[in-house]
Amino acid sequence: MDFFERLRHGVVVFDGAMGTQLQARGLPAGGCPELWNLERPDVVRAIHADYVAAGAQVVETNTFGAVPLRLGHYGLADRVREINVAAVRLAREAAGDRALVAASVGPLGQLLEPLGPYPWDEAYAQYAAQARALAEARPDLIIIETIADLNEMRAAILACRDHAPGIPIIAQMTMDRTGRTFTGTDPETAVVVLQSLGAAVVGLNCSVGPDALTGLVARMARVARVPVSVQPNAGLPLLQPDGRTVFPMGPEEFAAYGPRLVEAGASIVGGCCGTTPEHIRLLATAVAGLRPPRRQDARAEVAAFASRTRSVFLLERDLPMVIGERINPTGRKKLSAELRAGRLAMVREDARAQVAAGAVMLDVNVGVPGIDEAAAMAAAVRAVQEVADVPLSIDSPGPEVLEAGLKAFVGKALVNSFSGEPERLEKVLPIARRWGAGVIGLTLDEKGIPATASQRLAVARRLVDHALAAGVPRQDIVIDVLTLTAGAQQAGAKETLRAIRLVKEELGVRTSLGLSNISFGLPNRGFLNAVYLAMALGEGLDMVITNPLDERIMDTIRAVRLFLNRDRDAREYVAVLGKKTLVHSLEEARRLLDRPTGGPAPGPALPAGTAGDGPGSAGAAAPLSGGDRPIPPVIHGPDDPHGARKQAL
Amino acid sequence: MDFFERLRHGVVVFDGAMGTQLQARGLPAGGCPELWNLERPDVVRAIHADYVAAGAQVVETNTFGAVPLRLGHYGLADRVREINVAAVRLAREAAGDRALVAASVGPLGQLLEPLGPYPWDEAYAQYAAQARALAEARPDLIIIETIADLNEMRAAILACRDHAPGIPIIAQMTMDRTGRTFTGTDPETAVVVLQSLGAAVVGLNCSVGPDALTGLVARMARVARVPVSVQPNAGLPLLQPDGRTVFPMGPEEFAAYGPRLVEAGASIVGGCCGTTPEHIRLLATAVAGLRPPRRQDARAEVAAFASRTRSVFLLERDLPMVIGERINPTGRKKLSAELRAGRLAMVREDARAQVAAGAVMLDVNVGVPGIDEAAAMAAAVRAVQEVADVPLSIDSPGPEVLEAGLKAFVGKALVNSFSGEPERLEKVLPIARRWGAGVIGLTLDEKGIPATASQRLAVARRLVDHALAAGVPRQDIVIDVLTLTAGAQQAGAKETLRAIRLVKEELGVRTSLGLSNISFGLPNRGFLNAVYLAMALGEGLDMVITNPLDERIMDTIRAVRLFLNRDRDAREYVAVLGKKTLVHSLEEARRLLDRPTGGPAPGPALPAGTAGDGPGSAGAAAPLSGGDRPIPPVIHGPDDPHGARKQAL
Ligand SMILES: [Zn+2]
Ligand SMILES: [Zn+2]
Ligand SMILES: [Zn+2]
Repeated sequence: MDFFERLRHGVVVFDGAMGTQLQARGLPAGGCPELWNLERPDVVRAIHADYVAAGAQVVETNTFGAVPLRLGHYGLADRVREINVAAVRLAREAAGDRALVAASVGPLGQLLEPLGPYPWDEAYAQYAAQARALAEARPDLIIIETIADLNEMRAAILACRDHAPGIPIIAQMTMDRTGRTFTGTDPETAVVVLQSLGAAVVGLNCSVGPDALTGLVARMARVARVPVSVQPNAGLPLLQPDGRTVFPMGPEEFAAYGPRLVEAGASIVGGCCGTTPEHIRLLATAVAGLRPPRRQDARAEVAAFASRTRSVFLLERDLPMVIGERINPTGRKKLSAELRAGRLAMVREDARAQVAAGAVMLDVNVGVPGIDEAAAMAAAVRAVQEVADVPLSIDSPGPEVLEAGLKAFVGKALVNSFSGEPERLEKVLPIARRWGAGVIGLTLDEKGIPATASQRLAVARRLVDHALAAGVPRQDIVIDVLTLTAGAQQAGAKETLRAIRLVKEELGVRTSLGLSNISFGLPNRGFLNAVYLAMALGEGLDMVITNPLDERIMDTIRAVRLFLNRDRDAREYVAVLGKKTLVHSLEEARRLLDRPTGGPAPGPALPAGTAGDGPGSAGAAAPLSGGDRPIPPVIHGPDDPHGARKQAL
Repeated sequence: MDFFERLRHGVVVFDGAMGTQLQARGLPAGGCPELWNLERPDVVRAIHADYVAAGAQVVETNTFGAVPLRLGHYGLADRVREINVAAVRLAREAAGDRALVAASVGPLGQLLEPLGPYPWDEAYAQYAAQARALAEARPDLIIIETIADLNEMRAAILACRDHAPGIPIIAQMTMDRTGRTFTGTDPETAVVVLQSLGAAVVGLNCSVGPDALTGLVARMARVARVPVSVQPNAGLPLLQPDGRTVFPMGPEEFAAYGPRLVEAGASIVGGCCGTTPEHIRLLATAVAGLRPPRRQDARAEVAAFASRTRSVFLLERDLPMVIGERINPTGRKKLSAELRAGRLAMVREDARAQVAAGAVMLDVNVGVPGIDEAAAMAAAVRAVQEVADVPLSIDSPGPEVLEAGLKAFVGKALVNSFSGEPERLEKVLPIARRWGAGVIGLTLDEKGIPATASQRLAVARRLVDHALAAGVPRQDIVIDVLTLTAGAQQAGAKETLRAIRLVKEELGVRTSLGLSNISFGLPNRGFLNAVYLAMALGEGLDMVITNPLDERIMDTIRAVRLFLNRDRDAREYVAVLGKKTLVHSLEEARRLLDRPTGGPAPGPALPAGTAGDGPGSAGAAAPLSGGDRPIPPVIHGPDDPHGARKQAL
């Protein structure tokens, strides 16, 4: 029975600590644990055998530090292959057909760029070296564990996928008592990023003991589409007067948490530092016959994106998602010049301002002709991450530019974009898949943008099929049905609206739109854009790439959210719009500003006989004059069947 | 074979003149033509027989002036019954089974109120007297002809429907060389009003000869759902030196127009003044075997409403239809006081201003507690007609108030409204049907307004079924799915939007919405209303009851029309919006107005770094700063596949 088959039948029990077991069996302080795979295979094999005898269904190899960098501390950098291969063999010998073998991969002990000095490429190379050895040794699983930096985990997962392909990966982060990794990643974000990167299981291990992990496991299980694992240490370590570290939690106490962890949603339980075969024996007994309840909530089903420290789930009630468009040199001479000069202050300021204005994702485009766009993209993505904790949309027609941005971004990004054009269809999807990103597909192909909604649906269907075939989950596929200019292509605006609805209904994917093109060449573009946005949102548009500094756009979104029942008790609308006085035209504003205040209302009264005094004419400036006017007696209130369609002021 | 069976097989030929034939056979100038039904039955019978022999398939009785008023000129007012009964008998005797008998009903020779002194009720009574006699005499058809006043025709049709029920009515107006009746009714409007009033055939007769009528018949045929008839006189009459009137067009010339009239869409041809059996013989020969081609255009299929002088067809390209809401005392203290005092100046001014602002229909509501609402409604409707030539929506919960308004309105109105409440369901529909009006049905019943869209659809289905059963054609049924207040009923706004689409898709009827209630109790109501309107129009809303003086509403409609491909080349949008500078908030306007002009653009520049300088940030005031900014080189233009979703300024 393979691992996933076992998972379908119940909880899978992993083994406990290796390091503390080795020390207990004679490994001197400062000795290299992994060297014992070669020098004391009997001890290592015995530890595995004890865990198997205790009931562990999976044993972890003695390879937690078996990367060149860490083995190098003991002068063993050139024995990576030998040590890893031996470790897997020893575990296999002990496990026989009674347990599976998971190869342990641990942290490098280095702080990666940009938080520390260690280059990501170097981290990747370290893990790749171990992965190559594991590819030869053929464990059943690879378990990357005790990782505190999401970026390091990305390097480890990609290295294992690249160099030990086909071996399922368990990705376990380690978090502190704040409920985050020490680089700020929360449980949900870990799940969002790691399952998208291809981890078959995500989880937590070590560090704060089973009690504190229970709540974090539950948070993971609620959003995960993959199984969740947890391997706590035996409580918080206590430093003894003699310098030794002691783990305070005995086997009974430890095992008692087993059912609670399963109840919280863990499918896989085991032990980390300080746990012994006895801990595992009692744990296995405690969880025998249990199955985790289904814990997933709506977030597990929808698209999610993440920065290192924040996840965004595309829940209906939070839509539309506003993607800030401003980090884009198109039509911005000053930004072009800055990017050309390699200056990023403006990028940072745009990022900061857009997030402050309500963007929940930022589009990053550095398309300045003649520059090294890939380098500029990486630099811009790094700069944005310094000031904004939102997920990014990496925006370029160039596959190598997209990849540079994805690599630089620690989180789960959106790739903007691919299309039915053969080159982009072939090159972009594998890159997005590799980096665990969602994709925006533009409904155009080598013949251009189809005229009708049903033709765009046909292109969209092809895009979705290709993305699914490339391994992008349906949730992560976003279709942009493209706005043409309403001034030039008369029928286009309507077809785009229809296409939004068709694509959602027929393909079940999210939709996005770059808004502003619709009004190209027409007067009062901002007004047109806002009206079109309201209509597009009515058709079901989920994401809009726009300028969040444009108050009209953001207020329109607030109004639409109210109408779509996504703004409970109109709180969001009233909080923002209650403080503003909206007007329609500059002429109207001039009239209002020229007039003295007419009463207690916070603004000037309307001239008599204009829009403001009609039956319910909530006209241009009705709140100025009519906001607190008493309801006339013929209206019984908004529920009154006749009054309902009158226009009570 | 009855009349309509004959019509299905080809053109039906009516007879020619009676009056000029009687004169030719000895009726002295100044003699009463209808008296000869009693005194010279042989002559009348002979004329009929001559026409039958000439090929007339329908002969018209000698009753053109057989109403009490006109017979009274000869002291024969008390012989209406006798004369009409004799006339039908004579025609029947001559026709045998070779021809059908149509009873002729002519004009009263009085100008009706409000254009003249003659009361509508008196006109109705005159026609009712003749109709009662005809009900006894049982002609196959009633032909009301040579009527120049739409209002008089309404009286005649209603009197015949009421007092000679079951006898099909042919309604023929007479028009002058301007292509209108002398009271201003055009051919399309005649069709719209008369077929809704229950005329089985509409047409033209007399007056300007067959040549000029050909084009008018064609106009009628393009919009009519009923067959069209035409009975020209034998050319424009010439007054002879001896005082006699001579009709210049001989039989050959007259008959040559026959095929042209059929080609123009007439199913029924005949002759009026000056035509003879010989005219009819040649005409019958000329049209033998012909069938009118199908001439109807899209207007024949859609709902249409009309004033006396203008028709409004609800063609897709002209939607939404704006119904002005301001003539409504709800929330307007001043208007309430005016109506209470019987003053109508404000009503007239509201009517004028709303039409000037773009209303194509006006809602009239006089719901002031304590007044005689029926009288007030009639007075208001009359006042509105003095200044506005648009169709009206007669708005009241009271059936008797609705009827007073419908009676006073010369045209085809909309009844606002009925609902699933038993009393309104039973009483309103027959009134609307009687007066040929369309109906707005509100989706509520005795249990109130249903919460969900599908429940409202169920009520709407019941409303439509009842309206159809009452004889209101599907085109004339409008459903208002009702806006609740978004502030109080969170889910309501979305359900209303869904209901619009459902009702249109499932029931195939037009939809209407009284808009303003949606924003009740919330800040910036005008803005909310406009956003909701854009969404509702996107769902397919056809008519909106709103304040056309509210520029934001009207501009939103212009923008939506552009997006729905109803504004060719954006002409309407650019014509209006090209002259305005729209802003979003008063605060923004204040900023703009405080700043000196920055360049050649007709307005102040935006502060740098705000919404105006983003990539395609067609933000709050983009046209001020960005309208003529050159397109940057990376954008190839709006057709460029990549540029299409960037935001070219
Ligand atoms: Zn540990
Ligand atoms: Zn005539
Ligand atoms: Zn005649």
